[in-house]
Amino acid sequence: MDTLKHKDLPFWESLPLTSKKHPDEQSVINVGGVQIGGPELVFIAGPCSIESIEQIRTVARAVKGHAHILRGGAFKPRTSPYSFQGLAEEGLAMLQAAAAEVGMPTVSEVVSPEDVDLVAAYVDMLQIGARNMQNYALLRKVRQCQKPMLLKRGPAATIEEWLLSAEYIMSAGNPKVVLCERGIRTFETLTRNTLDISAVPIIKHLSHLPIIIDPSHAAGRWNLVEPLALAAVAAGADGLMIEVHPHPEDALSDGPQSLLPERYCRLVESARELRLLLEGRGLHA
Amino acid sequence: MDTLKHKDLPFWESLPLTSKKHPDEQSVINVGGVQIGGPELVFIAGPCSIESIEQIRTVARAVKGHAHILRGGAFKPRTSPYSFQGLAEEGLAMLQAAAAEVGMPTVSEVVSPEDVDLVAAYVDMLQIGARNMQNYALLRKVRQCQKPMLLKRGPAATIEEWLLSAEYIMSAGNPKVVLCERGIRTFETLTRNTLDISAVPIIKHLSHLPIIIDPSHAAGRWNLVEPLALAAVAAGADGLMIEVHPHPEDALSDGPQSLLPERYCRLVESARELRLLLEGRGLHA
Amino acid sequence: MDTLKHKDLPFWESLPLTSKKHPDEQSVINVGGVQIGGPELVFIAGPCSIESIEQIRTVARAVKGHAHILRGGAFKPRTSPYSFQGLAEEGLAMLQAAAAEVGMPTVSEVVSPEDVDLVAAYVDMLQIGARNMQNYALLRKVRQCQKPMLLKRGPAATIEEWLLSAEYIMSAGNPKVVLCERGIRTFETLTRNTLDISAVPIIKHLSHLPIIIDPSHAAGRWNLVEPLALAAVAAGADGLMIEVHPHPEDALSDGPQSLLPERYCRLVESARELRLLLEGRGLHA
Amino acid sequence: MDTLKHKDLPFWESLPLTSKKHPDEQSVINVGGVQIGGPELVFIAGPCSIESIEQIRTVARAVKGHAHILRGGAFKPRTSPYSFQGLAEEGLAMLQAAAAEVGMPTVSEVVSPEDVDLVAAYVDMLQIGARNMQNYALLRKVRQCQKPMLLKRGPAATIEEWLLSAEYIMSAGNPKVVLCERGIRTFETLTRNTLDISAVPIIKHLSHLPIIIDPSHAAGRWNLVEPLALAAVAAGADGLMIEVHPHPEDALSDGPQSLLPERYCRLVESARELRLLLEGRGLHA
Repeated sequence: MDTLKHKDLPFWESLPLTSKKHPDEQSVINVGGVQIGGPELVFIAGPCSIESIEQIRTVARAVKGHAHILRGGAFKPRTSPYSFQGLAEEGLAMLQAAAAEVGMPTVSEVVSPEDVDLVAAYVDMLQIGARNMQNYALLRKVRQCQKPMLLKRGPAATIEEWLLSAEYIMSAGNPKVVLCERGIRTFETLTRNTLDISAVPIIKHLSHLPIIIDPSHAAGRWNLVEPLALAAVAAGADGLMIEVHPHPEDALSDGPQSLLPERYCRLVESARELRLLLEGRGLHA
Repeated sequence: MDTLKHKDLPFWESLPLTSKKHPDEQSVINVGGVQIGGPELVFIAGPCSIESIEQIRTVARAVKGHAHILRGGAFKPRTSPYSFQGLAEEGLAMLQAAAAEVGMPTVSEVVSPEDVDLVAAYVDMLQIGARNMQNYALLRKVRQCQKPMLLKRGPAATIEEWLLSAEYIMSAGNPKVVLCERGIRTFETLTRNTLDISAVPIIKHLSHLPIIIDPSHAAGRWNLVEPLALAAVAAGADGLMIEVHPHPEDALSDGPQSLLPERYCRLVESARELRLLLEGRGLHA
Repeated sequence: MDTLKHKDLPFWESLPLTSKKHPDEQSVINVGGVQIGGPELVFIAGPCSIESIEQIRTVARAVKGHAHILRGGAFKPRTSPYSFQGLAEEGLAMLQAAAAEVGMPTVSEVVSPEDVDLVAAYVDMLQIGARNMQNYALLRKVRQCQKPMLLKRGPAATIEEWLLSAEYIMSAGNPKVVLCERGIRTFETLTRNTLDISAVPIIKHLSHLPIIIDPSHAAGRWNLVEPLALAAVAAGADGLMIEVHPHPEDALSDGPQSLLPERYCRLVESARELRLLLEGRGLHA
Repeated sequence: MDTLKHKDLPFWESLPLTSKKHPDEQSVINVGGVQIGGPELVFIAGPCSIESIEQIRTVARAVKGHAHILRGGAFKPRTSPYSFQGLAEEGLAMLQAAAAEVGMPTVSEVVSPEDVDLVAAYVDMLQIGARNMQNYALLRKVRQCQKPMLLKRGPAATIEEWLLSAEYIMSAGNPKVVLCERGIRTFETLTRNTLDISAVPIIKHLSHLPIIIDPSHAAGRWNLVEPLALAAVAAGADGLMIEVHPHPEDALSDGPQSLLPERYCRLVESARELRLLLEGRGLHA
């Protein structure tokens, strides 16, 4: 780590809050009782978009016991204005209700400063999406909120810029930031994005913040999710966020990259065994 | 154009408002009396950040006669929370005052939905910056405003995604969109961004919207601005946006890429002669 | 796999030899008695450049029992003409001698058509380096040679182009191709290249050829090699190629990314345990 | 230039032969009597592949007076082994014959060290293609040849790496190198490659070597060639290399990006007028 820090990081001075002060420093972020960054691998699961109370309830029941946090989008940042934009507050209420029934905390994306208080009223963790990683008006607003933040890396953001966005949130008094790598944009077209698996050990070297991986958005195809999820655990990630849908072929968004619940649950079991093996060998502990 | 449209653009159907209906369609956007997209090449000049009334007044006087629109940033999206963030409303008032003295309309960036009305009260055109191109909360807000919008391309956005962002603004009733290419992110490190000069003829083939070029942000170095600006005119751009500062070495942001006023004015004269030559040959007319 | 094949791969028809005919098809390539693509994870280890008989002999003895194949470069493709270019035939003789003492087969890079016969006379597998992946004169020459080929992916090559280069070799009668992913070029600068971990499951879906990972070149830093190596195994790679040097600080090339032998051996043990766990769960078997 | 050289170029010391020693240094390379790098803009035109004596003769006659050098490929580096690979020596003889009839020098690509002497026997300048920019065996062989070299930039090569490849050729005594930018690989898919127009002024700042632009390969579409060619001239390029084919729809390679001869000739006239205007203003002179 020393070589990395001193020789290659001219930006080190600009990261007073996100950088590590000593090699063993590791923050643990509490999300409704779930510890991210601690010894247990954390799983966040749910559909891309909340579509109905039946849909989110079905997913919640199916992943219960195999996920710590329930996810679902109510405010969707869509590339086209003509795509489904989410159920807004109605969706948040559905997410809250379904999660309460199974006793799980929740995470959902916020895309506008003016929605921060609304979203914070319904969920346990707010997600800053990849396309908003450098939306500084949003970053400035969420840092006034005391909920934990899940900060996704932008598809064209360097690791330095990502940490600087975390620095925005932390510099105003909210230290509860969890980083999420979800793929960067490259010339390769067979994947939706290129999962930058190296970001995991680099963040572990540079920063005390927890890092989780979203293999679903990186891959863009359900049949790549399992190998990428296992790779993320092997590389030392603190958790995984995975899209699960009971009927991927009917999903209003991101169906091709969603797992069926039973497949998701098997993946979780494999990932947990893998984590135990690594801990037993003294790796990523 | 036909080959491009029919064979290679599966997304064509998704661009009902930004796409051309016939080859000669060209929108002209009126910004305080200045026509962007018409026969005359349009110049937008000014400092990256408004720093003081003296600074913006000095620039305004120096570029008068060599620029149509005065630019200056009051709300700055900065990668680090510890960098200068702009003078906010105070800066907008300075920009308005300096522009009024020389009789020029103005453009300034808006970064937050809640600032849209404020910025719109001071300027003639609002800029959506590169990092906010997919900030859909902001896009949805500005489309309620009837001012023209300068929509910069995101550093990792495809041309399709850029047009879809324009579609967001237009789909709610604001047709006054001007596109601005300012470089995309690549592996090359000698330039701040890689100016995608091909975007000019592609936009001219696909869309009726005007397109201007910002060579300053693309280059990141003042001594590349002139050749890139002339290249943009030769490729058919409708205008140029260039950073000008009376004392680049003291600038609070982007000094290395700012031109001194006299150098800027010589560049404008070259660009105008070049445009006349192209028109005389029936090119890009 | 079916969706991937039929909907997204217009180039499928152009890959008659490298593509899978049925989901379970998997080629196993024999390299001096070592089976790549079979049930056992294969390790290739050695220094970037062969520097002396003492150096290669020290590495060979240190990795014996923890590596199947000994690697070492004698013809080095260096970005600058003023860098160390390798020991040529003298180096190949050292590699052969050191490998013979420990009973391991060998691999070394060939960079010129005229050296193919020479390199083939000394080693068990020839490596086509990343910068030569589209050196068609070299591809045409090596396909006349009956030795197995280790084909590295070019830093800007799509997976389609990589498979087409394999098709070059196979189309003239040499079916013994092993693919090696070693990172692609992106905008991120904290790693030498961005390891495209998704290439592993994609190749497993599309092609019957074995795929190994070179985490050393991808990372460019020794302390990233272990997590990337484990990620590769978790993603389903058939093997690993890792740079090992007894004195990385004195290496004539790629010292910063080389592991000390003892660290390498511990990594191999972790990787093997991980592979056993995955097999036990019916994954990547 | 000084800021660029001293502050940002740690690699400066590694370019003793290609870098400028003083701001006005400019090499002029003589190709069969044509001066590249001098006051006159140089045009290289011809088909991607030489297909028949009739084809190359038709092109030669059509571009005579509007081109200085005739191009045509006889050894084609094709991504697929199943594509047309060129007519080899037979094609070179056709190129030589057609060029002799119109009194023009020639350029053609060499892809293998063993073909260097053969190609050099037929043409006035040898082209090193983009995919061979880091084929060091080829670079080492061509530097023994005393013919001028047209060195294309690799699609993923930094400007530094490109100059280092020129350094390879020059370091063994062949100073006759002309650089050719033809687009780099990015995430944008509407163009075959992204023309890096900034490379022109950067090379002019850093190196004394002439630089020409190939807009045909960058664009991948004939209707983008003209605006990109004019942009290149405006940015200060020393010349243009453009694909011309009498029947693009029947071309065996690169038909979609080839211009018809009459369109090419009009483009040349526009480019020449543009160059005169720039010279008259003291730009790029």
